Order: sequence, then C-alpha cells, then structure tokens
Amino acid sequence: MKNTFGTSVAVTLFGESHGPAVGAVMDGMAPGIPVDEDFIARQLTLRRPWGEVSTARVEPDRFEIVSGVFEGKTTGTPLCILIPNEDARSRDYAPLRTLARPGHADYTGYVKYRGYADWRGGGHFSGRVTAALTAAGAVAITALRRRGIVIGTHIARCGGVSDRAFSDLPADLAALNKTAFAVLDADAGVRMREAITAAAAEGDSVGGILETAVTGVPAGVGEPWFDTLEGLLAHALFSIPGVKGVDFGGAFDRADLRGSEYNDAFYMDGGAVRTRTNRNGGVNGGISNGMPLLLRCAVKPTPSVRKQQETVDFSTGEAAALTIEGRHDPAILHRARVVADSVTALTLCDALALRYGTDWLGGAPCAAD
Amino acid sequence: MKNTFGTSVAVTLFGESHGPAVGAVMDGMAPGIPVDEDFIARQLTLRRPWGEVSTARVEPDRFEIVSGVFEGKTTGTPLCILIPNEDARSRDYAPLRTLARPGHADYTGYVKYRGYADWRGGGHFSGRVTAALTAAGAVAITALRRRGIVIGTHIARCGGVSDRAFSDLPADLAALNKTAFAVLDADAGVRMREAITAAAAEGDSVGGILETAVTGVPAGVGEPWFDTLEGLLAHALFSIPGVKGVDFGGAFDRADLRGSEYNDAFYMDGGAVRTRTNRNGGVNGGISNGMPLLLRCAVKPTPSVRKQQETVDFSTGEAAALTIEGRHDPAILHRARVVADSVTALTLCDALALRYGTDWLGGAPCAAD
Amino acid sequence: MKNTFGTSVAVTLFGESHGPAVGAVMDGMAPGIPVDEDFIARQLTLRRPWGEVSTARVEPDRFEIVSGVFEGKTTGTPLCILIPNEDARSRDYAPLRTLARPGHADYTGYVKYRGYADWRGGGHFSGRVTAALTAAGAVAITALRRRGIVIGTHIARCGGVSDRAFSDLPADLAALNKTAFAVLDADAGVRMREAITAAAAEGDSVGGILETAVTGVPAGVGEPWFDTLEGLLAHALFSIPGVKGVDFGGAFDRADLRGSEYNDAFYMDGGAVRTRTNRNGGVNGGISNGMPLLLRCAVKPTPSVRKQQETVDFSTGEAAALTIEGRHDPAILHRARVVADSVTALTLCDALALRYGTDWLGGAPCAAD
Amino acid sequence: MKNTFGTSVAVTLFGESHGPAVGAVMDGMAPGIPVDEDFIARQLTLRRPWGEVSTARVEPDRFEIVSGVFEGKTTGTPLCILIPNEDARSRDYAPLRTLARPGHADYTGYVKYRGYADWRGGGHFSGRVTAALTAAGAVAITALRRRGIVIGTHIARCGGVSDRAFSDLPADLAALNKTAFAVLDADAGVRMREAITAAAAEGDSVGGILETAVTGVPAGVGEPWFDTLEGLLAHALFSIPGVKGVDFGGAFDRADLRGSEYNDAFYMDGGAVRTRTNRNGGVNGGISNGMPLLLRCAVKPTPSVRKQQETVDFSTGEAAALTIEGRHDPAILHRARVVADSVTALTLCDALALRYGTDWLGGAPCAAD
Repeated sequence: MKNTFGTSVAVTLFGESHGPAVGAVMDGMAPGIPVDEDFIARQLTLRRPWGEVSTARVEPDRFEIVSGVFEGKTTGTPLCILIPNEDARSRDYAPLRTLARPGHADYTGYVKYRGYADWRGGGHFSGRVTAALTAAGAVAITALRRRGIVIGTHIARCGGVSDRAFSDLPADLAALNKTAFAVLDADAGVRMREAITAAAAEGDSVGGILETAVTGVPAGVGEPWFDTLEGLLAHALFSIPGVKGVDFGGAFDRADLRGSEYNDAFYMDGGAVRTRTNRNGGVNGGISNGMPLLLRCAVKPTPSVRKQQETVDFSTGEAAALTIEGRHDPAILHRARVVADSVTALTLCDALALRYGTDWLGGAPCAAD
Repeated sequence: MKNTFGTSVAVTLFGESHGPAVGAVMDGMAPGIPVDEDFIARQLTLRRPWGEVSTARVEPDRFEIVSGVFEGKTTGTPLCILIPNEDARSRDYAPLRTLARPGHADYTGYVKYRGYADWRGGGHFSGRVTAALTAAGAVAITALRRRGIVIGTHIARCGGVSDRAFSDLPADLAALNKTAFAVLDADAGVRMREAITAAAAEGDSVGGILETAVTGVPAGVGEPWFDTLEGLLAHALFSIPGVKGVDFGGAFDRADLRGSEYNDAFYMDGGAVRTRTNRNGGVNGGISNGMPLLLRCAVKPTPSVRKQQETVDFSTGEAAALTIEGRHDPAILHRARVVADSVTALTLCDALALRYGTDWLGGAPCAAD
Repeated sequence: MKNTFGTSVAVTLFGESHGPAVGAVMDGMAPGIPVDEDFIARQLTLRRPWGEVSTARVEPDRFEIVSGVFEGKTTGTPLCILIPNEDARSRDYAPLRTLARPGHADYTGYVKYRGYADWRGGGHFSGRVTAALTAAGAVAITALRRRGIVIGTHIARCGGVSDRAFSDLPADLAALNKTAFAVLDADAGVRMREAITAAAAEGDSVGGILETAVTGVPAGVGEPWFDTLEGLLAHALFSIPGVKGVDFGGAFDRADLRGSEYNDAFYMDGGAVRTRTNRNGGVNGGISNGMPLLLRCAVKPTPSVRKQQETVDFSTGEAAALTIEGRHDPAILHRARVVADSVTALTLCDALALRYGTDWLGGAPCAAD
Repeated sequence: MKNTFGTSVAVTLFGESHGPAVGAVMDGMAPGIPVDEDFIARQLTLRRPWGEVSTARVEPDRFEIVSGVFEGKTTGTPLCILIPNEDARSRDYAPLRTLARPGHADYTGYVKYRGYADWRGGGHFSGRVTAALTAAGAVAITALRRRGIVIGTHIARCGGVSDRAFSDLPADLAALNKTAFAVLDADAGVRMREAITAAAAEGDSVGGILETAVTGVPAGVGEPWFDTLEGLLAHALFSIPGVKGVDFGGAFDRADLRGSEYNDAFYMDGGAVRTRTNRNGGVNGGISNGMPLLLRCAVKPTPSVRKQQETVDFSTGEAAALTIEGRHDPAILHRARVVADSVTALTLCDALALRYGTDWLGGAPCAAD
C-alpha cells in the first residue's frame, strides 16, 4: 500500500518538496466531523520551523481543502487537503544532486526510483510532506476529541536534557497542547533550546526522544497477532522522518526490570478496571486495556549538518567530500511532536472505525457499548 | 487484516493453546523453494522450552505440512503447516479463568472477545502460536538464504547482563545460528543464565533486548511513507509476545548523539556503495541502503511470576489476589530469538517479492538487476 | 492478498485436491456465533457430487474444526476448518500431467507456478477447495441469519432450460434452502436434469446461470468507488470455478431497456423506503438500498468432456490429442449454488463488519441504528 | 480500502462534482514512464460529453499534475492529478436535494453519509470523478503500451443496435483508439446514435454493452482464488457508473453452450501456446493464458430521464413526483468506453507489478523471463 496507510480510515500522501504542492487524501473518516480550519492552521504552525532553533526557510503553509468537506463538516467521502509549496529555492540543492548526503535518503531514493525521482529538496522524502500529514491529522484529532480521546506529545529528551515524566495526564496533555516547544518542565525546555543552539553554532544537530500519551481509548481495540495496537502505531510512526525506534511504556529503559516489577497490577476504580502502574503502555496482548497509551519515538539528530562529511557521488561511484550549505534544522523534535500526534490520531481513528464501525467517530452508538 | 500479515507473501496464524492444533498458512511464497523438514524441526526445537531456564511443559512440536509442498519444494500455492497440541493440561489454568493475570492478555481478550474466547492456556494469545510462525519462518529463512540473505539474532541484554556487540557479522551470524542460547560472548551467556535461574528461584522472571542482524538485503527495498522497511518490520515484530519496543541501529541508546556523530559516511567498497558506520541500521528514508539491517526488540519480562499479585476478577468486578501456580518460563528471550528471525524473514520475503516480483525468491532474475 | 479475501472478516483458502486436506481460515468473525456442525455438514453435502448428474468420486467431506470455536460458538479468533482428502486416485490423472486440458488451469498453473505445483487432480485449482469455502460459508450464513439476512441461489438456467423467476422471495428462499437441486419450478428441474443426463451420455457437459438473492441487507453498505458492493461481491464470486460473468439485477438481459423502464421507482412501505421494481439488484451507486440483492453468475460448462480435444503438451511444446477418461461432472451448477451462497455470505459479513463494527454480527447494537 | 484500489499500483480517487476539483493519486507506478500531457488531454476529451448525444454542460477538463512527474516522466512516487471543476451550476440541482432520483445514489448516499455528503450534482458519486480516473488511466495505458500491451473498448450494443464482433484485434484496437464514437462498424454507429437521439427526444435514455479487448498480457498473471484476474478486473470495473455486469468471453451469451463447444483448444503457434477460440476471454483458473483478454460491461441506461417518476423525499418520508429538468446524457457508453480502458489498464498495471516487480513496467527485465 506504500503511501497509503489504514484500512477503514486511510491516508494517502503525495507531493514533492519543490513541486506545486504536497497533500493528503483521508478516506473513510466518519461524516459529520466539524473541520475547524483554524485548528488545522494552528497544527501546521506548530510543525513550521520557527525561532532560532529551526531553519529560516519560510513556510506559510496555506492549505486548501479540495474535497470531502461540506458546510464545515466531513462528508464521509475522501477529504483531500493541498498545501501549495512556496519559496522553494531549488538552487540551494542543485550541486548536491548526485552526492549522497549521509543520513538522508538521497542514495536509497536514487536506487529505488532509478534516477527518475525529483531530487530537489529531498523530493517526496522531504519532511515537508508531513505538513499534509499534520493537516489530515488535525481532522483525526478533532474526531477523537469528540469521543473523549486526547493525545499529546512532549519532548522527553533532547540534546542530553530530559523533561520530567508525565504525572497528571489530563493536565499535562492540556498544557502541552497549548505549548509551542512541548515540554512539561519549562526549565528543561530552556536547557534543551540551549543545547540545540549550541549544536547549531557548531554546524551540528541534535536528536532525542518524543513521548506520546493518549487518554480515553476504550479497552478492547487491537488484535492479538500482527495488527496489534503497538504494531499498527509503530508501522505508521516510523514514517516520521528521523524516527528510528518506537516503544511502549518505555520498554527500552526497563529492560532490566523483573516480571514482578514490570507487571501492572489490576484494580477496580469505581466501575472501571484500571492498573496501578502503566508499564505496558496501555496495551496487553496487542489490545488496549483502557489505560492511557504511552509510546515513545527515538528521533535521530537531523542529518543535515554543516561539518564536512565523507560521501560518494552515486552517479559516478566516486568518493567525494560534502559540505551542506544553507540553513538547516539543528533539531526537529519540537516540530515532529505535532506529526507524532497526527500519526497517532490517524492510526487510532482507523483502529476504532474497524472495531466499532465507520460511524462511531461521527457519534453513532458504539457496537461494543 | 488481523491475523494475516503481508501483501505478496502473507502469513495467517490460527490456533489456541489447548485446541487441537496451532498453525500457519503462508501464501505467495515463490514456487521451487526446497522445504527442509529437518530445518523446520530444528527451528521449532530452538523455540521449545528447555533446560533449567524454561518451563517444564513438554512440547515435542511435531508438525504436518498440509498443503503447498510437492516433491519437497514449495508449489507457490498456500503452504499450511499444522502443529498439533499435546500434553496441554487445562486444569492448571482453570481457577484463573476470570482473574486477570497482570501483564497478560486475559482482561483485554475478555473485553475484545466478549467472553467467548477459549481461555485455556491463553488461548489464541498463547506463545504457542509462535511455533506455527517459526515453522513458516523456517521456509522464509531458507528462501532468503538462497538469495544470499542471512538473518541472526542474539540476546543483547538479559537480566542486566549485556552480550558483546556484533563485530564480524558473517561469522557472528554463522555462530549464532548454531547456538541454542544465542549469545556472541559465551561468558555473558553464563551470567545471563545465572540471572534467569536466580529470578526463577525467587518465583520471578527477567526480560531484556534481542538484536537481529540481516546481511545481503539489496539496496532499494521499502517505501518512503508508511511502508518503510522499519515500519513493516516493526509492525510484525510487535506480534512476538513480550516485545514492547523496536528500534533500528540502536536508536534508543543513541538519543544523545549529534548529527555529525550519527550520520553514516558513504564510501565505495569495490563497486559497492557502503557506509563506514551503520547507525541507521541499514535503512535511510524507509529504504534499505545495502548495509546490514540492524534492529532490536525490547522484550519485557515474562509476566507469569509466582509472587502474589493484586488483580481483579473481571467477571464480577471484584478485587482479588492472584498466585500463579505451576512452572512458567522465567525468561523467553532465548526462545523468542528464533521467532524474531522468523518474523524478520517473513517480512523481508514480502518486501522483496513486492519489489522484484513473485518469482525472485525462487531464483528468477531480479527486475532491478 | 491472493488466497485471502476480506478486510474485517477474511477467509484464507489452502489445500490441494490430492494432498492431506483442503481448508479455510476465517478470521474476524464476531465472537459468540453458534457453530452448528450439522448445518456445516448439510452444506457440504449440497456441494457434493450426487446422483446421476455428477461424478462418481465419493467425497464424504468429513471436516475438523481446528481453532476458533469454543463451547459451540465462535471465539472471535481465527476459525480453521480442515477437510481431509480421501479416495483420491492420482493415477486417474497421471497421464495428463503435461497435457493442457482445454478450459482448465493446467497450462496457466504451469506457467504461474513454473512447474512446481501439485498437478494431481487439479491441485490447488481443484473445485475441491470449494468444500473449505462452503464450510466457512456455513458459519457466515448462520451469522447473517441471526441478523435477519437470508441468502438463496437457484439455477436460473441450465442446459437451455430456464427456471421461473423469483416471485415471493422469503418463500422462494426458504424452499430453495431445503432443496438439493435448487430450482423454483420443479418441472424445469426435471428438464434440466434431463439435459445434463443427455450431455453426459454424449461425454459432454452443460453450463448455465445461477441467480442469488439476499434479503435483509440494511441500506447504506458499500462504497461509491472501487469497494462498491457489486465490485466486492463480483471479486469473490469469480473465484467459483466456472464462473465467467457476474451481473446485478439481470443487467446483461436488460441492455436494451430505456432509462424510464430501468429505473426503480421509490415509494414508502410503512416506514421503509422501497423500490417498486428491483432492476438495480438492491444496489445504487455501489451502496445497498435496502431492497434484496439480486445477482447472477454465468457458469461455463464443465471443461472435462470425454470427447477428444486438440491440445498441446506444455513440457515439450508439441501438439497432442487429449481424451479425458474417468467420470466427470457433466454439470456443476447444482453443486456450485451452495458455493455461491457461501461466497456471498462471507463477502457480506466483511462488508457489514466494516460498516457496523466487528461485534455487530455477534448481536451488538448497530452503530448506524 | 474504499476509494483506493490496487496493491502494488494503487489509485485513490477524491472530489465532488461541485467542489473545487476532482482528482486521483496513483501510487506505485514504475519510475521512468513518459507522461504525455497531450495523450491525457485526448483521453479526457473522449470522456467529455459532446455533440448531440450528450449533455450540454461544458467540461473543458483542464488538469494539473501536482506530484509524481519530473522532467516529463513518472518519478515512482505518488502521482496526483487534479481536475478543477468549472461551470458547475448548483442551482440546477437544488430542488432535488432530498428527492431520491430513481436509479441514482441519492438515497443510498444519504443513508451511508447520514446526510452530510455534498449533494450538489451527485457529489462524490458524480460521473465527473471518472475524469480523474481517466487521467490516471492514461498514464497506465502508456506504461502498458511500452510493454506491448494494448487496450481498446467498443460499444458492442447500444439502444438495441449491435456492433460487429472483434475480428483482427490489432487492427480493430488501433481503429477504435482513433475513434470518438467507438464502434467497429461505422453503420452500426450511425444507428446507435439515431437510437440515442430518439431516446433523448422522448426525454429518455439508453444503455448497452461495452466490450474491451487487451492484447499482449503475458501468461501467468492472476491468482487461483479470490485475486483471479477476472475478479480483480470486475472489482474495479463495477466502479464505472452504470456498470451492472461484467463477463469474460461473453459468458452471459454462451450459457447454453456445451463443454465441447465452449472449451478453447490449445495449439502451438510458432513457439507460443495459443487457443483456437477464446471463449474463456484469455483467463483460465483465474490466470491469464496469453490470449487476449476479452471482457464486457453491461451498462444500464442513464438514470436521469425527463419523464416524471415516482419517488420519495427521504428527509420527510413522503411520496413525491419527480421531474428532472436540465439536459442530461441520454447515453454514456460512448463516454464510458475510455473509462473502461482506464480501469482495465490500472488493474493490469497492478497485477503485472505484483507479478514481475515494481520496475517491470518501467522496462526492467521480467522476473519470469
């Protein structure tokens, strides 16, 4: 399925960085979901490079809804959003055309597309395509909220600095979703930005870890084999440029725990089954258990660094030295967080629509009620 | 698609722990692949519990090939393998029927299947289903080897003990694939087993990290969005019971590196483009770059611990104390490693068949040659 | 997806005519559906060759439910049914191995599977695989009935003889589902059997047209583009051996009507929107309109005829004359009708589960209520 | 998957008749296919209403390639084509908003989309969406031609008039692909147009049968169960508005033949296996046999007729009389033929890419060579 993801609610991405536009088609979303253009614009703004910690390329991110919305609400038919490209300066990239930038997809794209791909600005590999994903994700986030499902992502670690852990999730998510640089601890945020600025000053970049939480997912969603909730989410999350790892409940940090420490004890909270801890990240046996989903994405540092690098010219097979000019993002975690929210939202909409039917997100009674 | 995974080469799993059999249907495998029953049996043996570090339930793992093999080779039509269940003692589990074992799928399975699932021995959630996956994986591993693609997994960390890193991959993989307890450093293996035994003695369990390497994957396989090679592999790997995290190139351990440290410099090695380091785990922009794939699975400790645990009876909604009797695996990493190989192999067969056509694995010329 | 069909409720087929067994895995069926083994056996009996109008090969069609049923009901996990092969005499077919039987898949199977397929008795192409489809279909038919959806198929035309049209659908379907040779007009049935017998006497065979009706499908199921209800059903129905055409509302017979004659006028019947006629076969714009589904399958005559035929030996590329020995079905319509019911039921279960959620067939409230 | 069709080469459709644009995203097409904008324009022109036999609404069908083409060739990344809507007069349709037009999707769309769909001009159900399908199809047709695969469709029957049968396929297809009103017998074409004009004069419409032939499809493409070549093609073809039946080899007209008449005898023609007749329409056992594909689509008469019709207002549940004003197509076969070519081409590109790999259409060697 390639550039399409999802079964009942599916998203298709298209577009190149320096073509006329990037875009997304979201199909299968329930009819009747309000489409708030201001919210889409706000989400796109969060994804934009900004301030001292991002590239200076200006991306106003105007968008156009081409289909699937009527009188302010989703129609249930495919919703296409176009985001025209502007201010793309191809000449910045021209000398690099056949020099494989380390850590980028130049070489793999060249092999896969046999030299025919639009190489300008990363083409279809460009992070700019995530603008389309973010716009589609905004509609999915809205749909989920109406069902009481709230998503938020913070920068758990960046440039060697850690944010505090989630504590009071509803409050934490509410706060994050009002913040441009998504940290729970403002102080940690300051130090992260300092680390980014320091790396940028050396022509270098930093990576880190994003942590996403989702409250309100009903128990019983996901499958025991293959279409586990973890597998579905991870499948999609690895599309976010730079994401090289996904775990649930912080598993990579808990490899040394014993079973008696790792298990989440069940208890009754009013009429609801809950767990005392949430080391399983809200999923047991591939299926949601009613606790918040907790997942992390390991994001590698942005590969465009100014320092000279060893590489090859893949058109000639000759060794080359590469110096990447221009301004590039010294970090993308603060921009990627809204993409993580979006990908999570789209994947959950699909899983929920499969479980409860295509109208559930639109407010119809839940088949599992 | 649920219990089916794959597009061109697909696997469907079925079976319950205490039903007549578990099994797998592999569809789309190229015709003409030799099916070596001894190799299948050997792989199944590696998955079996054994020695002091696993449960005493005896699983001889006889298997029957029901279809798809003729005169010792794959026919190209669906290959069904059945593994009859034997020696299953349902009474061991009966008292637990409605007590949610922490860390298990009892509660989520109850919600999802509305109380109708076969609860005996974990039913369809049982790790026993991985025997079927392993048998199908053995055929996939054979097919890949004939194309020069070799897979191996070691226990990178277990019970707080680390194995050494991969160094000479071909030699390391060859050694691992002859080893029952898959470590590169025999000494580390001894200490891991001690840790497992110590945990078992306390009625507890340990988890850890598996690391898988794959050599010989051609460059150019995978997609830029959604069907990234990382996303496809992670999707499937999260089906392995206990896997709660997947990363490539050890990303979760490298969150603090800078871009200039993380980037893998390209160079020419003979006629081939290679990278000096392999922090991207063989994948750039979702597409294989010709370097070995390197991926890790974080495996939580086995949830069946003997220590008393707090839980609820989900049929009554009442609090309960749970003590799990019987012998259970104090660790599953040493058994899961062959499942990781199998899942990786099946996923790669699918990606390669999609890329190069359905006959490529059978020896037909590569469309991308 | 090949031998798997369906998205939410999916069926995977496997097995060769002369291997150990044929079988089906049905995945995604709602939990809690009663599995009536007598009904499965009855459906298998309807598919069996019988009497003077079919081949004498005896097929007792014992079946074994390997998974997915517990205490007489579906568990919601994959339901695997095995039907062991018996009484298969490979020697009957041996001389034909490389002679392409006209109208059969010998040659195309040879090309596709590069000579590795099990050639005995048609291998995986054998109509015997429909026994597995029928067994799975029986569960689907049961599930639909519990939701008030009833399916029946009659032989609308066979050997030049026409059955009467459907008139009172509920009564007609009830009658058909009690009949072995499925016609509405007993007299037409007699003449059809005479035509079959006459063809058989000349070593020849006949084909015809099956017509299926489905009552009780709610309005609003299906998609406007690609996953039209017609497209989904036709996709699956073309798997029935011999089916070479599918239409809705008898479209091929109505090519000369004018729009004013073809349109189905809407009217209110109590609180329900209905149409005066049903030339659209219950589907408008790809979506069910609440009227009965009406579809027809054109079934070509059985290709195994005794008369000598011109062919080639595809292993040598030489011309050959072929005479097919043994007894073969002079007609399969009377056997295929239960397969048409089954395929229709499985496809509808999938479409309904996608629309209303995975529990709707199990009795959960409809999201669209 | 809904508005997306295909596995390796997939098409996603979007857009409403009176929204800003309709469009298609084609994903998975091999890189390096020349994209001839003149050819796309020509195909769009064939789909346009024209002359006395179609509606007077002017549709200039300008189109914009948004992505996936670089320097005149496909890049291999998703190709998005937008076709802006112009000259749409919503007021023509306004009074009909809640009156179900017989034979249209107004009522089913209302139920499915719960009243939220864009009702103007049929919205997403509009035949206008086929313009996008046609544009994408033009690229697929070009790709296939470069592999020696040629498609053509004629109006086999319209308004009670039959065209002659195919005789010399290469010449017939070449002629058809230069013709606006696609008939093989010019005389039959004159009479068909007279029939259309006569129906139009009475405020009525006609339907008929399209027949498509495809030469050059290699043997061995398609699957034995479910993804039969017939099933895949039919699945997609039923999306063409008005198509209510699909058969292969003219099966519905051959229901009375005996097996000895129906079977296609094999013979050697030079080195190639061929059949004397082609009643199986180029497919045996779901798999192409190397002969031309021959398929027919039964197209119902255009439902928009001027004559007064009985209907209901689905918002009030009251009976109503409906008179459709404005000019409407009295026939669409002559426009739909290019859509049939397009859908066939897209489906074949997918089946071939699955079989031979993603680069085969781009000229890479065939894995099955």
